[in-house]
Amino acid sequence: MSKIQMFEKPLGMRDSFPEVNEQKEYIRSIAREFIRNKGYDFIKTPSVEYFETIGKASAIDESSLFKLVDNQGEMLVLRPDMTTPIARIAASKLLKEKNPLRLAYYANVFRAQQREGGRPAEFEQLGLELIGDFSAYGDSEIIYTAVELIKALGVENFQITIGHAGILTAILSNNTSKLEQVETLRLLLVEKNFVGFVQMLDDLKLTDTQKENLTKLVDYTLESKSWEDFRQLLTDEQQYLLDQIEQLKKLLEVQLSDPAIYSFDFSLASHMSYYTGMLFEIHAAGSGFPIGNGGRYDELFRQFEQSVGATGFGIRVDRLLEVLPKKATDEKHTLLLFDKGSFLKANVLADARRNNGERVTLQYKDSVHDIEAYQDSFHEIIKVVEGGSASE
Amino acid sequence: MSKIQMFEKPLGMRDSFPEVNEQKEYIRSIAREFIRNKGYDFIKTPSVEYFETIGKASAIDESSLFKLVDNQGEMLVLRPDMTTPIARIAASKLLKEKNPLRLAYYANVFRAQQREGGRPAEFEQLGLELIGDFSAYGDSEIIYTAVELIKALGVENFQITIGHAGILTAILSNNTSKLEQVETLRLLLVEKNFVGFVQMLDDLKLTDTQKENLTKLVDYTLESKSWEDFRQLLTDEQQYLLDQIEQLKKLLEVQLSDPAIYSFDFSLASHMSYYTGMLFEIHAAGSGFPIGNGGRYDELFRQFEQSVGATGFGIRVDRLLEVLPKKATDEKHTLLLFDKGSFLKANVLADARRNNGERVTLQYKDSVHDIEAYQDSFHEIIKVVEGGSASE
Repeated sequence: MSKIQMFEKPLGMRDSFPEVNEQKEYIRSIAREFIRNKGYDFIKTPSVEYFETIGKASAIDESSLFKLVDNQGEMLVLRPDMTTPIARIAASKLLKEKNPLRLAYYANVFRAQQREGGRPAEFEQLGLELIGDFSAYGDSEIIYTAVELIKALGVENFQITIGHAGILTAILSNNTSKLEQVETLRLLLVEKNFVGFVQMLDDLKLTDTQKENLTKLVDYTLESKSWEDFRQLLTDEQQYLLDQIEQLKKLLEVQLSDPAIYSFDFSLASHMSYYTGMLFEIHAAGSGFPIGNGGRYDELFRQFEQSVGATGFGIRVDRLLEVLPKKATDEKHTLLLFDKGSFLKANVLADARRNNGERVTLQYKDSVHDIEAYQDSFHEIIKVVEGGSASE
Repeated sequence: MSKIQMFEKPLGMRDSFPEVNEQKEYIRSIAREFIRNKGYDFIKTPSVEYFETIGKASAIDESSLFKLVDNQGEMLVLRPDMTTPIARIAASKLLKEKNPLRLAYYANVFRAQQREGGRPAEFEQLGLELIGDFSAYGDSEIIYTAVELIKALGVENFQITIGHAGILTAILSNNTSKLEQVETLRLLLVEKNFVGFVQMLDDLKLTDTQKENLTKLVDYTLESKSWEDFRQLLTDEQQYLLDQIEQLKKLLEVQLSDPAIYSFDFSLASHMSYYTGMLFEIHAAGSGFPIGNGGRYDELFRQFEQSVGATGFGIRVDRLLEVLPKKATDEKHTLLLFDKGSFLKANVLADARRNNGERVTLQYKDSVHDIEAYQDSFHEIIKVVEGGSASE
């Protein structure tokens, strides 16, 4: 083992040092209390699942999966998301006990990285899933809860963009002739490559009407909330999709007092291909990537042979850390140094202070190599020496 | 995918349903506060490490490692313990900032299972490491902290057995002629197969004196605390090992007021082969396996090319759950059912109650399939219907 590799971590893997870890703990504890208060129950699932069960059903590209083979020769994956394992549990057990079902998680998920792109291969996600509810009330609950949670966590400057996977698919399908053209255009929208999208309309040799229609998706001068331009792009059978999002809009107007924090954008597309209905992204000042996203994914349950409506969201803890103001961690930490003769006295003093809620490190003086440097990281130093009394 | 496999998890992998999850959260939160109060800092490390770095250095048998290959072709492992990753971080970075260093973790670790043995392949562990202290004060701190933590978590009936890896190795080596005999005998002690141990003394064709000496290790009529029988089994150069454990005993007499909760047993051996000094196991009524264990592992840092004393312990959360009395979770959970006309009214009522700390599920009535069954899991049901007032 080379000296370099000795201390290395795999590509995209990170340590959380104490200060960052405490910030994560703060987020975790606020989020847990908030989410339980809303009636959601937290669960945990294994880090490792069958590829057949979770790897295939998940919306994550296979090249991003960490795969391994177990002692029985079965292909396993490190879970790439939490929505699919929760769907597995809901379908196999919990929906029989409670329907609709409200579940929540705080968990790490895994995405294999191809090369040095600075992206994490393992990150923490917190989120919730409302399973068994096909209604717009369910969608509204999810968006409202995401907004309130983001506020409770202390994010001040954020924006929610709401789209609809069904409407986008309909508009793309109605204005192309091949299924692969739909997917090509959809992927450009996932990447928010709007210039490439317009360019591709030419490359695909679409008709002028098709181009005009599809350009409306990425036309920022169009007020999507007026809807009428988009109604025209849908067939009679597809009108219900726009009805869905109009109903959601009305419910959000009841729940969200500030209309400035959300807007609608039918070009919104997600790399999570299992979304079927409304979907949304949360952007916050301070991160170039969405701090959270969610949507309706009724289709996922078909893979578990059930017809169940489901909607939910997840928030990336690493990106939350980027946008939240750094909390000053000036919690008092006292160092109590003792020598051979003062062990008992030092123990009594340390326990007395600890019982008052003070953090106290009790340290045998002669085990410290560089006493000056060591003391630097404490707020108060107390030396208990043999025969003498405690001195600061 | 067969119907069975659709819902299956890999061998030894488990879900934590809400009730168990909340019990784990209770343990986690008590333990975190207790351990931070003692001056330890929590850190997180990746679930996945290089096999070269962590897989080889860890004391876990290679057949129990989950191995995988990343996109760069490197061999990776799911971390089989937390001590080795913490040693990596300490050696590469944190010891330069603070020495001695006190670190803690609450983390899941992975052990591949060979067949259906009912053992978990992933489990949560909480523990701490005191790195940079060669003294018996460090060992005493670790045992004392383990005892106090176990008490704080609510375990009432437990016993700590303390041994010494160095003394055991010395006695085994002094009374055999080959290194593989030492390992054969040690493994029988790890399995606590004392009958097999005595039988093996015959099989190995040892001399009568050797047999007599080694039998003392497993002789329960011998009061190990009197030490003298064991002093005779050590060479002059090895006497310091017994001095170490005698010093630890004196310090524990100062810190632990109840002498009944700990005892010494020089036959104690661990499957964690990196222990070099004192080691211990915590047994509690209700679990057939130790709920925790720990020890001194100075040797581990040699693998990171450093000469550093280190001692620590870990507690198995799954086994803690077995021994702790089930906490009644009778937290009030209210169901608020609304219909089309009462969405606003229901939201106002739900938020008012939630702001008082009450758990409230807000549910559109028509989305519930079986209303009678659904209501069963709530403590209070409130129906908000159009035009009418809230009724219970």
